[in-house]
Amino acid sequence: MKKVLVTGFDPFGGESVNPALAAVRKLEGAQIAGVALMTSEIPTVFGKAIIKLRELVERERPDLVICVGQAGGRSDITVERVAINIDDARIPDNEGNRPIDQPVIEGGPVAYWSTLPIKAIVQNIREAGIPASVSQTAGTFVCNHIFYGLSHLIATAYPQLRGGFIHIPFLPEQAVVKPGQPSMALAQIVEGLTIAVRTAATTEEDLAIGGGQVC
Amino acid sequence: MKKVLVTGFDPFGGESVNPALAAVRKLEGAQIAGVALMTSEIPTVFGKAIIKLRELVERERPDLVICVGQAGGRSDITVERVAINIDDARIPDNEGNRPIDQPVIEGGPVAYWSTLPIKAIVQNIREAGIPASVSQTAGTFVCNHIFYGLSHLIATAYPQLRGGFIHIPFLPEQAVVKPGQPSMALAQIVEGLTIAVRTAATTEEDLAIGGGQVC
Amino acid sequence: MKKVLVTGFDPFGGESVNPALAAVRKLEGAQIAGVALMTSEIPTVFGKAIIKLRELVERERPDLVICVGQAGGRSDITVERVAINIDDARIPDNEGNRPIDQPVIEGGPVAYWSTLPIKAIVQNIREAGIPASVSQTAGTFVCNHIFYGLSHLIATAYPQLRGGFIHIPFLPEQAVVKPGQPSMALAQIVEGLTIAVRTAATTEEDLAIGGGQVC
Amino acid sequence: MKKVLVTGFDPFGGESVNPALAAVRKLEGAQIAGVALMTSEIPTVFGKAIIKLRELVERERPDLVICVGQAGGRSDITVERVAINIDDARIPDNEGNRPIDQPVIEGGPVAYWSTLPIKAIVQNIREAGIPASVSQTAGTFVCNHIFYGLSHLIATAYPQLRGGFIHIPFLPEQAVVKPGQPSMALAQIVEGLTIAVRTAATTEEDLAIGGGQVC
Repeated sequence: MKKVLVTGFDPFGGESVNPALAAVRKLEGAQIAGVALMTSEIPTVFGKAIIKLRELVERERPDLVICVGQAGGRSDITVERVAINIDDARIPDNEGNRPIDQPVIEGGPVAYWSTLPIKAIVQNIREAGIPASVSQTAGTFVCNHIFYGLSHLIATAYPQLRGGFIHIPFLPEQAVVKPGQPSMALAQIVEGLTIAVRTAATTEEDLAIGGGQVC
Repeated sequence: MKKVLVTGFDPFGGESVNPALAAVRKLEGAQIAGVALMTSEIPTVFGKAIIKLRELVERERPDLVICVGQAGGRSDITVERVAINIDDARIPDNEGNRPIDQPVIEGGPVAYWSTLPIKAIVQNIREAGIPASVSQTAGTFVCNHIFYGLSHLIATAYPQLRGGFIHIPFLPEQAVVKPGQPSMALAQIVEGLTIAVRTAATTEEDLAIGGGQVC
Repeated sequence: MKKVLVTGFDPFGGESVNPALAAVRKLEGAQIAGVALMTSEIPTVFGKAIIKLRELVERERPDLVICVGQAGGRSDITVERVAINIDDARIPDNEGNRPIDQPVIEGGPVAYWSTLPIKAIVQNIREAGIPASVSQTAGTFVCNHIFYGLSHLIATAYPQLRGGFIHIPFLPEQAVVKPGQPSMALAQIVEGLTIAVRTAATTEEDLAIGGGQVC
Repeated sequence: MKKVLVTGFDPFGGESVNPALAAVRKLEGAQIAGVALMTSEIPTVFGKAIIKLRELVERERPDLVICVGQAGGRSDITVERVAINIDDARIPDNEGNRPIDQPVIEGGPVAYWSTLPIKAIVQNIREAGIPASVSQTAGTFVCNHIFYGLSHLIATAYPQLRGGFIHIPFLPEQAVVKPGQPSMALAQIVEGLTIAVRTAATTEEDLAIGGGQVC
């Protein structure tokens, strides 16, 4: 039985909903073979996001952590490959912080790879008929921030833990008021995340299949 | 009881599925208050598409016709405003025809307005949380072709009939192999079309709300 | 010697520049073989735009009129195929008018074709290494409005006159403050319009080459 | 007098031109105050690209290296922030190599920051009216490969050297045959790169201004 923690951010940037949180709440109580699932809400606030995550990890001792965030403008579920040690906020977070070129962790390395089987997750989501791809950037806002913080925690304190970050599109109800923006139905997002959890919990070694971008 | 005919095209352009046809088949048998619904498949072939539609109208005498087609690359359900009297095919149709700048109907007017309540349909679909908008162009392929043919039939032979065209996005399963393309879940497309049928069947006069584009 | 009038709109929608006007001013005084060129600024105002254009046509008696407007978000020079008889303004014009579903000309036909050789213009601009394509919609704002007004003037009062509408992208200086938006250098826009004028002045019959869209 | 090396890749992916190489050749001989400029062509081949670059650095001992590559689909000049230690080729390079998830440098760190003043470069290019932005990913093809290789060379052998990577859009002539793709005039690309060289050669400390992305 693998203990898996899935987190979602609260709404930010003027949105009243965050599809990540909505999806994570729907996941709660999902029956996934061999998985004991727990979910949690994380504040979209630099610093506090990592503090909350660290407390959860210390208390719950999960085997696996998947953080989920909204990627407005993307049309598919994107599994992030790499977290970088920078906060560079184009918009303020939920407490008004707007750091520019600050390290997530002072003295940390430039970047960490995701320790999730990202290629296997993408392939399994696609095989379920849901668009997904590997992403080479999680941005420089709170999503990348928590992804880096999680990765640093794994590297420095919990070497058995594995974890990473998945971005999801707007919900259709958000796209209604953002004409032209792509979206994904909540049921599909939840199914995609369920597949990600199952894949992460059962995959020892990632697949050697392409997931790159020319630029 | 309004008799409503909804049509969908068979797959084209190398696709093995046409979301329009998939959605129209799902609609079959839907219970919509006050509506007797019938659906039909239309060949993605210049000329034959209109012939098939005309036979259906002659035989079935519907009150309302909604033709549905795939708009790859669009992220929402788009209700078409205007049909133009031109065939200009960027790709061949399903019988290899590729007309360039031929009239749909020799001697017909340059264009016809949709006789559906397009603004009301868009508003009602949006209120259900599904992205939708008015479109100012149905292209110059078989979708516009049948839309013009239907409109000409209404103008010249069936003045009581009303009808128009609705474009829908790729299905998620199509976007899986077209990375970066937006898509919409089949259940949402079907719900959107159901709302369109109900709205068209019950709206006498369209709403005076915006649906334009700067260019 | 063909007398050619080229018009550009003044800035709108909060912009301090309109690339159409900037380009049209640069065109002024251009030496194009066999062409006597005149240019004019048109207000981005429903109604007044057409009044100004009609006065110019009555006074100057050009052989050819090309109206030019900005199409923010498009990446190439787009030669419009069809003008439709509707004003449906998503944003207010420069005098605060925001008509919804009003005809451009009460009692006019649904649409007019451009009387420019649109395919030849696109081909010649492309052969000069400048991106261009046929567009099936000029929107429902003042651009389409003047295009329809011009076409109606041709159809009802000046049967010898030919004319149409060309949309151009943002200038690079506009895209600087709209990250991610495509743009085109002013020199290229001016060259493209010069080619359009020359082509329109020397082409009797348009080319039968593709310029359509699937949707 | 700062010695500056600027490199461009040869064409790849079926293109007959690479805007990076075209622009770099145009730069040759440019007079930039306080700068001795040299340029070089680099093969779009994994491994060989870095070998060629290392030879150039060893022989020429530049103070500054800027590698330039094509980013088809982007509409502005993008100054890359970070190079990652992975080769994951979606398409083959010019010798048919298609590595999947191979490190650029076995045993190298996950990533390196650009040692160019990326924010100052972006600001100065924008002030010249040319669209530019910071990019958080250089992809996983040969562009990122040489960027990582250069950064590793700096970190391990040439601590005084500074360098980084700049992506540029398609040229207009390329977009002619890729309808809908954004492009940038060669003169603007060359001006942008000239500004980048001058800025890099004269800026001791980068500006603390925003350049991030939400995701």
